[in-house]
Amino acid sequence: MRATTIHGPRDIRVEEVPDPRIEQPTDAVVRVTAGCICGSDLWRYRGENDINAGDTIGHEAIGFVEEVGADVQRFRPGDFVIIPFCHCDNTCPNCAAGVQSACVNGGGTVSGQGELVRVNQADGSLVRTDQPSESVMPSVLSLTDVMPTGWHAAVSAGVRPGMTVVVVGDGAVGLCGVIAAQQQGAERIVMMSRHADRQQLGQEFGATDIVPERDEAGIEAVLDLTKGIGADATLECVGTDQSMRMAFGLARAGSTVGFVGVPHGVTLPVGRMFGKNIGLRGGVAPVRRYVPDLLTRVLAGEINPGRVFDLDLPLDDVAEGYRAMDERRAIKVIVRP
Amino acid sequence: MRATTIHGPRDIRVEEVPDPRIEQPTDAVVRVTAGCICGSDLWRYRGENDINAGDTIGHEAIGFVEEVGADVQRFRPGDFVIIPFCHCDNTCPNCAAGVQSACVNGGGTVSGQGELVRVNQADGSLVRTDQPSESVMPSVLSLTDVMPTGWHAAVSAGVRPGMTVVVVGDGAVGLCGVIAAQQQGAERIVMMSRHADRQQLGQEFGATDIVPERDEAGIEAVLDLTKGIGADATLECVGTDQSMRMAFGLARAGSTVGFVGVPHGVTLPVGRMFGKNIGLRGGVAPVRRYVPDLLTRVLAGEINPGRVFDLDLPLDDVAEGYRAMDERRAIKVIVRP
Repeated sequence: MRATTIHGPRDIRVEEVPDPRIEQPTDAVVRVTAGCICGSDLWRYRGENDINAGDTIGHEAIGFVEEVGADVQRFRPGDFVIIPFCHCDNTCPNCAAGVQSACVNGGGTVSGQGELVRVNQADGSLVRTDQPSESVMPSVLSLTDVMPTGWHAAVSAGVRPGMTVVVVGDGAVGLCGVIAAQQQGAERIVMMSRHADRQQLGQEFGATDIVPERDEAGIEAVLDLTKGIGADATLECVGTDQSMRMAFGLARAGSTVGFVGVPHGVTLPVGRMFGKNIGLRGGVAPVRRYVPDLLTRVLAGEINPGRVFDLDLPLDDVAEGYRAMDERRAIKVIVRP
Repeated sequence: MRATTIHGPRDIRVEEVPDPRIEQPTDAVVRVTAGCICGSDLWRYRGENDINAGDTIGHEAIGFVEEVGADVQRFRPGDFVIIPFCHCDNTCPNCAAGVQSACVNGGGTVSGQGELVRVNQADGSLVRTDQPSESVMPSVLSLTDVMPTGWHAAVSAGVRPGMTVVVVGDGAVGLCGVIAAQQQGAERIVMMSRHADRQQLGQEFGATDIVPERDEAGIEAVLDLTKGIGADATLECVGTDQSMRMAFGLARAGSTVGFVGVPHGVTLPVGRMFGKNIGLRGGVAPVRRYVPDLLTRVLAGEINPGRVFDLDLPLDDVAEGYRAMDERRAIKVIVRP
C-alpha cells in the first residue's frame, strides 16, 4: 500500500510499504478514507522525538473494514468505522476503569496517513457509524483523537457547570478543549492565544475571553479576570515546561490541571502543587470511552470539531501538510489516500 | 511564656519567650494544655530545612481560650478549643472551595510546643469542644494536624468503598491514612512498613496487608497482590523522591496518588503520570474542613487516632521527644506545658 513515512527531521515521504495484515484473530484491517496530521506527529517531524527512518506515521483514521480476524464478532467487511488511535479490548480492568488508553491488550494505529490500517482488538476498539457526508466527515475524523483528547483534558480538570475554565494552547487540541469546556457547562472560558484565526474559532466554539499574554503576564491576566483567585479548572494542551508552569501559575488553590499535551522537558512544580493543593490529572486520552457520546453530539449538530481542519490534501501532498502545520499556516490537516 | 525553640540542627531548647498577644481584632490567644511533635518538625531538627536560630517550633495544640480580639464573635475566654494548624477565616473563596489551608487571610500556629498560642482568624479557625477526658485527649489533639492530614491523603486519592488502597509511609500520618482509608470504605488496605510496632498498630487500624519491601520490590509486591493492576488509590505520606516514585510505580492506571508528605527533593515522574493517566492531588491539609466530622467520629469512639502517640512528656523534656522521634523510638510525642 501507499503510506506516509518519515526518514528524518522534516523528511516526509509517500512510499509503497507492505500491506498491514491480520496478525491476530482479534485484528481487523481498515481501508482508510481519511486520515490526518496530529500536533504530536510534529515532535518527530521537528526531530524532537526519536525517528526510525522509514517508519510509517499517522495515528488518526476512519474508513471501511476490509478484513477481520476469525475472532472478530461485531464488525464485518464494509462497515464504516472510527478508529480510536489507542486500541483496546474495552473489557480489561483498565478499560473497565475508563482508561482504555492503558488497556492491557492494547495497541495503536501506526499508518493512519496511508491506505490501510491494522486494528488490534477490533471488537473493543472500533465504533461503527454510517459513512458521514462530506460536511460531517471532518468532525467524525476528529473523534479518532483530537476531540476526545480535548474532552479528556476537561474531564481530567474536573470541569463543572458554572466554572471559569482556562485553556492553555490554541492548537487543535486546545480548540477542542474549548468545545469540551463549553459542553461540560463552563460559564467562562478563557483561551490563551495570540493567533487571530485561532482566537476567532475559539470564540465561535465558546471562548468568552482571550488572553494573548504568556508566562507571568499571562498568569497576571487570568488573575485579573478572576479577582485574584485563579482558574477553577485548567486545561493544559501543549506539553512544554513553559505552558505547564503557566497552567499551575494561573490555577486556583484546590483546583486541578488537566493535561493532555505529551510532556516534553516538563519539570512539575511540586512545591506549588503541594502548597496550593493544585492537582494534576490526565494523560493519553481513553478515546474509545468518549467516542459514542461525542459521536452523538456530532451527529446531532451540537458540536462541530471538524472545523479545526483548515487544510485538506491528497496523500501525495502530505509533506506540504506537515510544512503547513509546522509553520502554523494550518491548524490541522486532513490527508486523503 | 516558656516554649520550645530551635537553635540549630538537633538543638532544641525550652526558653522564656515573649507571650503571644492579640495583634488583630480577629485574633485569639489560647493557653495550651497539650501540644505535640510533628514529623515535619524533624525536617528542621535534622537540618534539612532552614532554621532561624531561636524560633519557636510546634504547630499542633489544644487548650483553653485565654483572650479574644474585639471582632471575635464565636469564642470566649474559657472555651476549650482545637486549633487547626493552618488558620483560616473559613469564608474566603479558597475556604469556600474546601482549601482552608490556602485561606487568603490565613496564618498558622507557630508555638504549639509552648504555653500560649496566637490564633489569627479565631472565628474561622477554632473548633470548640468540651475538655476531653485523658483517654480521649490524644485523639482530640490529633485533630490539629495528623489525623486530618491522613484523611486528606485519602480524600485526595479518591478512596471509595471497595477499593484496594496502598499507604506509603508508616509514620503517624501514614497510620492516620490507614484509619481514613478504613473509614472511607476501602476493602483492602496495604500498608508499606518494615517496623513491627507500626505494622501492628496499622493492622489494628484496619490494614489488611503489610508490605515490608521498598522500591522495585515494594512495587512488585503490590502488583502481586492486585493481579498486576496496581492500587486503586495510593496515599503518599512521606514526601521523599524515593517514596513518591514507589507510589507512582504501584498506582494503577487511571488512579490518583494523594500526597500529604511535604515534598523534599521530589522530581515527579511526569512521563509515567501521562502514559498511565495517574493523577496527583493533595498538599497541605485543609484541617478546619475535616475537624467537625472527625471530632464526631472521635467522640463516638469510631476512630482512635490518639493511639499514634506512644510517648507523653512534660515540656521540659521536649528535646528527648525529638530524639525519640528522630531515632524512631517513638511514633509521635505529646508535649505538655
